[in-house]
Amino acid sequence: MRLGVLGGGQLARMLAIAGHPLGVTCTVLDPSPEACAGPVASLLVAAYDDSDGLDRLAAASDVVTFEFENPPAASAQRLAAAVEVHPPPGALETAQDRLLEKRLFERLGIPTPGFRALDSQAEVDGLEQLPAVLKTRRMGYDGKGQMVARDRGQLAGAFAALGGVPLIAEQLVEFDRELSIVAARGRDGRTAAYPLVENSHRDGILRLTQAPAGGVTSDLRRQAERAVGLIADQLDYVGVLALELFQVGDRLLANEIAPRVHNSGHWTIEGAVTSQFENHLRAVLGLPLGDPAARGRCAMVNLIGEPPATESVLAVPGAHLHLYGKAARPGRKIGHVTVTGEASLEQRTARIAALAGEG
Amino acid sequence: MRLGVLGGGQLARMLAIAGHPLGVTCTVLDPSPEACAGPVASLLVAAYDDSDGLDRLAAASDVVTFEFENPPAASAQRLAAAVEVHPPPGALETAQDRLLEKRLFERLGIPTPGFRALDSQAEVDGLEQLPAVLKTRRMGYDGKGQMVARDRGQLAGAFAALGGVPLIAEQLVEFDRELSIVAARGRDGRTAAYPLVENSHRDGILRLTQAPAGGVTSDLRRQAERAVGLIADQLDYVGVLALELFQVGDRLLANEIAPRVHNSGHWTIEGAVTSQFENHLRAVLGLPLGDPAARGRCAMVNLIGEPPATESVLAVPGAHLHLYGKAARPGRKIGHVTVTGEASLEQRTARIAALAGEG
Repeated sequence: MRLGVLGGGQLARMLAIAGHPLGVTCTVLDPSPEACAGPVASLLVAAYDDSDGLDRLAAASDVVTFEFENPPAASAQRLAAAVEVHPPPGALETAQDRLLEKRLFERLGIPTPGFRALDSQAEVDGLEQLPAVLKTRRMGYDGKGQMVARDRGQLAGAFAALGGVPLIAEQLVEFDRELSIVAARGRDGRTAAYPLVENSHRDGILRLTQAPAGGVTSDLRRQAERAVGLIADQLDYVGVLALELFQVGDRLLANEIAPRVHNSGHWTIEGAVTSQFENHLRAVLGLPLGDPAARGRCAMVNLIGEPPATESVLAVPGAHLHLYGKAARPGRKIGHVTVTGEASLEQRTARIAALAGEG
Repeated sequence: MRLGVLGGGQLARMLAIAGHPLGVTCTVLDPSPEACAGPVASLLVAAYDDSDGLDRLAAASDVVTFEFENPPAASAQRLAAAVEVHPPPGALETAQDRLLEKRLFERLGIPTPGFRALDSQAEVDGLEQLPAVLKTRRMGYDGKGQMVARDRGQLAGAFAALGGVPLIAEQLVEFDRELSIVAARGRDGRTAAYPLVENSHRDGILRLTQAPAGGVTSDLRRQAERAVGLIADQLDYVGVLALELFQVGDRLLANEIAPRVHNSGHWTIEGAVTSQFENHLRAVLGLPLGDPAARGRCAMVNLIGEPPATESVLAVPGAHLHLYGKAARPGRKIGHVTVTGEASLEQRTARIAALAGEG
């Protein structure tokens, strides 16, 4: 089976690594000849809107999927006209626009923080409920393209400061913690949901995932599974998607979806019976989904910027190193470490976090 | 880190797949442009005794290792003169000669079936103890290059039938079962031994590994760990090696060693904290060894000849498919399936075995 992936970063790299044992070979399209999926896939170097590159990707693939939610709409359509494409471009359009996303939650009866669209500085000035988070409707990630406004003074010039593009204001929620749920939906509509996990961010970037999240009641799990299932069904989704949530007391509020394999699901490589990468491949290729159950508890620590010394990481029992083959750069995700095994999991995770500069 | 591998088959392929997350990139040398490690490594197409190819492999590598025990001695020496090589060529020389191997066991006080060298038909005719297994001293694998002689009539012409090469006769042991132990030894001499596993062969080819083997007493485990540890120390071994054993009552008899990652260790990819492939990389590259403990029970079924339909395999809960990207051919190992999870492990393994044509 031949899978095409638009984008050749670490997500494509881990998809390609998961593909080889299944007899799935990947071709990735990326503008950079250094794309880190290159060593494990066939790399087509082309811009994401390059017609010739897109046509070559389609010709080299039985199915095409995406590594990120923001491919040019025309590119997704061109691919979909030539080859089977999963998830559907419509799902990407919803996920890449925070307003459409929030309206989807609302339509499905999924609790979400209050929100309103802001299309001008005048509308920003008219904002009544503070504090609020102002976010660009499109192209934000890892905390980029957003600001917190706690008083009216901070609203001045905010529209221009965020790029003069359509915004959304979201109620700033005092949440207890951030959770996420990753699920796969097959071509036959069946869904396999991983356990809820707890995520810790710093500077808008995910630092730590604890899987499964502790203290999850069956009611909480049901809320999360129901929400991600409704969203996947509504979008006629095929593949892996992630839903980020805030926990407030015994309620979950939907924050955003990611229509792809997700950083908060990297723990599944060692920590679940079937990894999110394998389940994404299974889903988009029309194969039976694999068991998403956790194999005990584990933790995932992101490596940001400079990587720690390999021997220091590997000296920690149960530490599984995943380097992405990317050049180090401040704030850049260049790998992750998953720590498995229940005995002294917290201490060993703390050692890895310290090595990762998160001490 | 850059690892060179002499040989580009499935063992090199699984080493290369294990390498990417550690930041280890592999270059493999293989005579075939179709070598199945090619898609996950840099492939040098050259004969194993091609000086130019060997020099290019050495130049592309920080450390060179081997996928098989029979590289030409001159090739191993040429590599060792140019680059760090693990395991040491001397260990390969011992492992590729059944007589040297048996004498090593004897010297270390490791119980092994009775044996004697046979260098001519006259010596074959003089064999007194029957039944016996006659094996070529060198180049046998997967049951090739051997015959069982139960009566004197079968000895006639045996020397020529086995190729007219030096032979070894081994006592035919009535064993209870076949076990093996895989261990890694680091550059610092530390050893990490995986649990004993039980192996079932048919037509001389491994079909099923149950890991860990059931009913293993602490005494049995000690015998196995002691034997593999003594052998590794004596050979000044660095890397993963396997020791195949016969269990007779409460005793273990050493059958043979394999100076490489081993088919009976494939279960470690999902079934152990650290896979044998990662531990071989860690050992030869001078990194700390990883935990060899099992993560519950599992079973590994080899796929021989025609592969079963992928969707049938993946429909079995907890089945992990590993295809090697090799063309199907009768008797050829083209993949394996590891079944994890304790619940109904035997039934699920039986389903996979049936799909593999082992029903």
